[in-house]
Amino acid sequence: MRNLFEVDAWKIMEHGFDPAKQQHAESIFSIGNGVFGQRANFEETYSGASLQGSYVGGVYYPDKTRVGWWKNGYPEYFAKVLNSCNWIGINIEVDGELLDLNVQKPRAFYRELDMQKGILTRRFKVKFSQGKELQVESLRFCSMDNDEIAAIKFTVTPLNFDGNVKFTPYLDGKVHNHDSNYDEFFWEEDSHKVDVQKGYLCTTTKKTKFSVATAMRFSFWKNEELLTIHPNCHARAFYVENNFEHFLEQGNSYVLKKYVSVVSTVHHSETSVIPRAINHVRDAYTSGFDVLRSAHESAWKKLWEKADVVIEGDIASQQGIRFNIFHLYQTYTGKHAQLNIGPKGFTGEKYGGATYWDTEAYCLPFYLKTADPEVAKQLLLYRYNHLDRAIENAEKLGFKNGAALYPMVTMNGEECHNEWEITFEEIHRNGAIAFAIYNYVRHTGDASYLMEKGRKVLNAIARFWVQRFNWSKAKEKYVLLGVTGPNEYENNVNNNWYTNYIARWCIQYALDCENSYAASSKAQLSRQEIEQWTKLVDAVYLPKLEGTRIFLQQDGFMDKEQRTVADIPAAESPINQHWSWDRILRSIFIKQADVLQGLYFFEDHFDALTIQENFDFYEPKTVHESSLSPCVHVVLAALIDRMDKAYELYLRTSRLDLDDYNREANEGLHITSMAGTWLSLVEGLAGVRIGQNGLTINPKIPKSWNVYRFQVLYKSQPVRIEVNHHKASILNAGNVPLKISVKGKMYTLEPNESIIS
Amino acid sequence: MRNLFEVDAWKIMEHGFDPAKQQHAESIFSIGNGVFGQRANFEETYSGASLQGSYVGGVYYPDKTRVGWWKNGYPEYFAKVLNSCNWIGINIEVDGELLDLNVQKPRAFYRELDMQKGILTRRFKVKFSQGKELQVESLRFCSMDNDEIAAIKFTVTPLNFDGNVKFTPYLDGKVHNHDSNYDEFFWEEDSHKVDVQKGYLCTTTKKTKFSVATAMRFSFWKNEELLTIHPNCHARAFYVENNFEHFLEQGNSYVLKKYVSVVSTVHHSETSVIPRAINHVRDAYTSGFDVLRSAHESAWKKLWEKADVVIEGDIASQQGIRFNIFHLYQTYTGKHAQLNIGPKGFTGEKYGGATYWDTEAYCLPFYLKTADPEVAKQLLLYRYNHLDRAIENAEKLGFKNGAALYPMVTMNGEECHNEWEITFEEIHRNGAIAFAIYNYVRHTGDASYLMEKGRKVLNAIARFWVQRFNWSKAKEKYVLLGVTGPNEYENNVNNNWYTNYIARWCIQYALDCENSYAASSKAQLSRQEIEQWTKLVDAVYLPKLEGTRIFLQQDGFMDKEQRTVADIPAAESPINQHWSWDRILRSIFIKQADVLQGLYFFEDHFDALTIQENFDFYEPKTVHESSLSPCVHVVLAALIDRMDKAYELYLRTSRLDLDDYNREANEGLHITSMAGTWLSLVEGLAGVRIGQNGLTINPKIPKSWNVYRFQVLYKSQPVRIEVNHHKASILNAGNVPLKISVKGKMYTLEPNESIIS
Repeated sequence: MRNLFEVDAWKIMEHGFDPAKQQHAESIFSIGNGVFGQRANFEETYSGASLQGSYVGGVYYPDKTRVGWWKNGYPEYFAKVLNSCNWIGINIEVDGELLDLNVQKPRAFYRELDMQKGILTRRFKVKFSQGKELQVESLRFCSMDNDEIAAIKFTVTPLNFDGNVKFTPYLDGKVHNHDSNYDEFFWEEDSHKVDVQKGYLCTTTKKTKFSVATAMRFSFWKNEELLTIHPNCHARAFYVENNFEHFLEQGNSYVLKKYVSVVSTVHHSETSVIPRAINHVRDAYTSGFDVLRSAHESAWKKLWEKADVVIEGDIASQQGIRFNIFHLYQTYTGKHAQLNIGPKGFTGEKYGGATYWDTEAYCLPFYLKTADPEVAKQLLLYRYNHLDRAIENAEKLGFKNGAALYPMVTMNGEECHNEWEITFEEIHRNGAIAFAIYNYVRHTGDASYLMEKGRKVLNAIARFWVQRFNWSKAKEKYVLLGVTGPNEYENNVNNNWYTNYIARWCIQYALDCENSYAASSKAQLSRQEIEQWTKLVDAVYLPKLEGTRIFLQQDGFMDKEQRTVADIPAAESPINQHWSWDRILRSIFIKQADVLQGLYFFEDHFDALTIQENFDFYEPKTVHESSLSPCVHVVLAALIDRMDKAYELYLRTSRLDLDDYNREANEGLHITSMAGTWLSLVEGLAGVRIGQNGLTINPKIPKSWNVYRFQVLYKSQPVRIEVNHHKASILNAGNVPLKISVKGKMYTLEPNESIIS
Repeated sequence: MRNLFEVDAWKIMEHGFDPAKQQHAESIFSIGNGVFGQRANFEETYSGASLQGSYVGGVYYPDKTRVGWWKNGYPEYFAKVLNSCNWIGINIEVDGELLDLNVQKPRAFYRELDMQKGILTRRFKVKFSQGKELQVESLRFCSMDNDEIAAIKFTVTPLNFDGNVKFTPYLDGKVHNHDSNYDEFFWEEDSHKVDVQKGYLCTTTKKTKFSVATAMRFSFWKNEELLTIHPNCHARAFYVENNFEHFLEQGNSYVLKKYVSVVSTVHHSETSVIPRAINHVRDAYTSGFDVLRSAHESAWKKLWEKADVVIEGDIASQQGIRFNIFHLYQTYTGKHAQLNIGPKGFTGEKYGGATYWDTEAYCLPFYLKTADPEVAKQLLLYRYNHLDRAIENAEKLGFKNGAALYPMVTMNGEECHNEWEITFEEIHRNGAIAFAIYNYVRHTGDASYLMEKGRKVLNAIARFWVQRFNWSKAKEKYVLLGVTGPNEYENNVNNNWYTNYIARWCIQYALDCENSYAASSKAQLSRQEIEQWTKLVDAVYLPKLEGTRIFLQQDGFMDKEQRTVADIPAAESPINQHWSWDRILRSIFIKQADVLQGLYFFEDHFDALTIQENFDFYEPKTVHESSLSPCVHVVLAALIDRMDKAYELYLRTSRLDLDDYNREANEGLHITSMAGTWLSLVEGLAGVRIGQNGLTINPKIPKSWNVYRFQVLYKSQPVRIEVNHHKASILNAGNVPLKISVKGKMYTLEPNESIIS
């Protein structure tokens, strides 16, 4: 696979401008701060193909779902994260001619995303039709220090002339979602105001009535000298601007520093967003660009101290893993319980920026091991806060007595997916949400969350499962009919092993918690429930291939034509681009880990032979056409010592977007799968587990790497791990002793003590 | 169930105007002639709730399908039968006040559909705000004699004044489809012209470029005297009108006779539609209303001679069966191979007026037994003409070597359904299309069609099935995975018994035909095909409940919670209005005959005990929430002597729309299910079969009827059947001897001979 951008340990770099790559680059170079984010669109006008995108976390529109014939239980709407006010805009004009890289082809174009510092830089030279040449540099960031602030430093230098240049910084709220189902415009204007060197715009979403206030201020400099200017103020509905012409002298740099504040009713009251945005941007203006930038860079520095992974000897892998970690923290920082992690973060519109089970299955372990427990806890609280909605959701489907079915896709707790065929029956999501509670407790040791809040979620989920199973007279077992497993290349199957297994586990876990806490807290389950659940757990049907250790993905799996991925002609791969949907459905091919997802979650329930036999059965049938698939296979492959396979699949996931394997990064990045990449490395290659037996490490290293090192948090204590081809070093960097198993041997490490194994 | 309209043997009548019933009445009182049709909208303005509908057979628009995420193999569009030019319009104004029954509440309102003559009449008195009273009568028909002509006689009588009344006959092409997926307007104007007492409008569909030319002429009379008038001519895009004021004298009748011609490029070249419409309407104008009406009524008389069913002793049943026959012939007359039978005919928009498998499964037997063989043959030719498209359709899904998959929904042979969830995998349709060929041959004895055309269709369908089966190592049988059977309350199941059975039958029938005709015509199958197909036919998997005669609807059916319809609380019925779709899918409840559909088609393959055991197994699980369900159950119930059940279900189907059982007749009538009603009576109650053993009759009669009589065609010979509680009389009304089995005894009837049994 070609590298589309230059390879560097900390930077993504692009020399030379290729309009065909622009939309992909807009995704790759996106910046964000967990609260809002911005694709790497140009500040100045760009008339070429572009996906202009500015997104504010939690601000969504309930776009009417597209279905042929609507049926009961279908969601009424598909929640769209909204493309909101364009705050980066700065137009430049020379002799009435707009700067537009689709018109004036740039020279010496350079774009850089410094992941260590979170700064996006762009530089180029350009010649206007009358021969006048400018050098332009822009530098911008969304502050990690103050997540309602962004700043841009836009520098123009006339290279071969003295003369007037017109500058127009503006805010534009007339922004459409590219993925609107019915071409609706989603915004109304609340108000706007413009004044000299400042202005604001407040827009409100139709129906959901989220308001976003965006305020700007700017200053104008000649080299280091602040200039006094007299701009024209102009405003209309959804738009405010200042414009001014200035006489530039050749060889001098003229700098427009634009400060922006983005404040929404996701976090503040309706009446406060405008004053807050105005105050914020005034403070930012007063502090100045360098002060803001320095605070922003310090915030990133703190994050990297905990989260960085260093790989020596393979710079592409080094860049890849940092790119993933960088975007994960740009998307979610854990500061706000209203927010979650959209599959494309703030980098695109597809999948609507909503919350999927990806959060619990893939992202949570990343935050558990790289951030303070509070961050992961916010993700749990998000679901806890939605419990009532999950109960309502189950009621709509005919369930009773407080049974909860969490949505497959949500913004506010309501189900809001975009189609029936795949998502509707993926009730396994409920299992991942219960598993997240268990996972949180074993990582952090924080049982108080479980006691106070977790059990309520757990019991409600268990109640759903208990009602959803039915007794099969034919099988004399409890069965789960009409589900879709994680493998979305199946639909409406019976007895998906993964779903049955995790459902049974949920019920058992709820019973175990009831037992454990019955003494110390009030009973939450009735005696009848305990009896019924216990009986059910003992008689859940789990399909298995007779005479083997293989768990069958679902009933009827062995009726399929038995083929392997090697049988698919190259010209027909990926099958989702070449085969009809019905053919994919009845084929044996698996989109993403399904039985193996269960073995990954519940690794300690199975012996090595079972894992190996299932891996060997399913891996050859898996086409990995979901970005969330390879990571689970990497972890299991490493576990059973298939390092070549593990590394092959690791490469596939680690640079998925950077190298645009699926040719769709132009639509946005695969944010949640980035957590999967990190899992592949830490749980897969490095063999780090926090399971029944505490922290265990069984590290391996790919041939092409010299050494790699990273830190994980275990019970809030940092543990530093370094692996090379000869040894692994484990350092307890915390302040309490830790028991750690390394390569099968148990050690007790005092603070600051390390072992080399 | 209440009767919504008055009960009469030949008429549908409504006394008094109820705006809440208007849309239902617009459907019930619809008129058509197999080529175009018109809902019973008012000629004058009506500002109340109404579904204005005028439809031209075969004129459709490819409306973009509504899906969440589009996948390969999904249809690009859902074909919509188009709401086209409103040709009935005649506005009436008194003192500037428009006649509008939503404004002036009518007295003595009376509406009548004379089914014997095909005439829609409406009469009422109305008082305008200034106290002036009019009596209004309208009478209209779509000519069954000339299927491009319609005529309206609109009479106005001033009851209490002399004074001016304004008349505005017009054509309006600015007509929207209510069911447009994206609120698109589907028409472009081609041209229009208006002149004194005449005008035309030609509109063309976007994308598909069908043109419809609608021309009008009118004359104006005082009682029997033709008046000379000087109307104003007015036109704009999509609209032409004449308007004139006339001084009316109290107590005299003023008659506006409006002649309309509707000509489309479905039947004529682009350049000819306008001159043809103009010539047609001129001829109609010249002939005059009474001549046209008389030719129209004669055409209906001829149809009724063959198709009428007389029931004495139960006038509601009598009205019901005639209502069904009347609408079937209004929808399809068999004159044009381009046309077919939309589920709602010309009475509404839902299901887009496209062709479904309903045609072969339910409608074909009706036309085979009530019309000359040419009519049914047109339905076969429709599919024959689409064979290339069916092969393309299969190719899109990955099939090869001339395999054909006929579409589930089509206008031109391409698949164009509106959703995946139900229709996509209903490949059983292919079986019904093959079965129709077999059915045609056994009814008509016309083997030449089979030889020349039918076998090509048959072999292509068989090739599809052969490729669609796959070998299951687990079962050591050929299986069909990922299908939906006729029961649409299941989706994506494995080994649907009905589909497997009819698929196997198709292949066997193709092999039999190859054997039969190998001597007299060129071989159409290769030796390898014959060998492979023979092997496959012997090893098709057909799920069965061990130890019984019960065929299982699909794999896993016995894992479902075993319940009966009696277990559904009344408040939750119909389940499709109360249960979520996933709950319906995993329940045992059956929407429409599935296994039983197979037993109905292939009755002579099974012994009575098998039919009885399956009926007793499936009937209690069947909710009959498809209008196409009860008829099959009636036929089988009568066969196994469950006359109470048969009659109960017969009642449910026979007055479905008249009494609006499903509260949806406002959207249009269930045209194809009307054929099912006829089947229920003729094949069910009267036990008429044309099967392996020729014509057999085993008549029964419901308790409440005194006598019923009808005619069927067998090998083109009319056979008249009369049944009362004591005896059945069978008359050979043809001109060749016929062998007929009555109540198990075989007779040879000479022409004009009858037997009484």
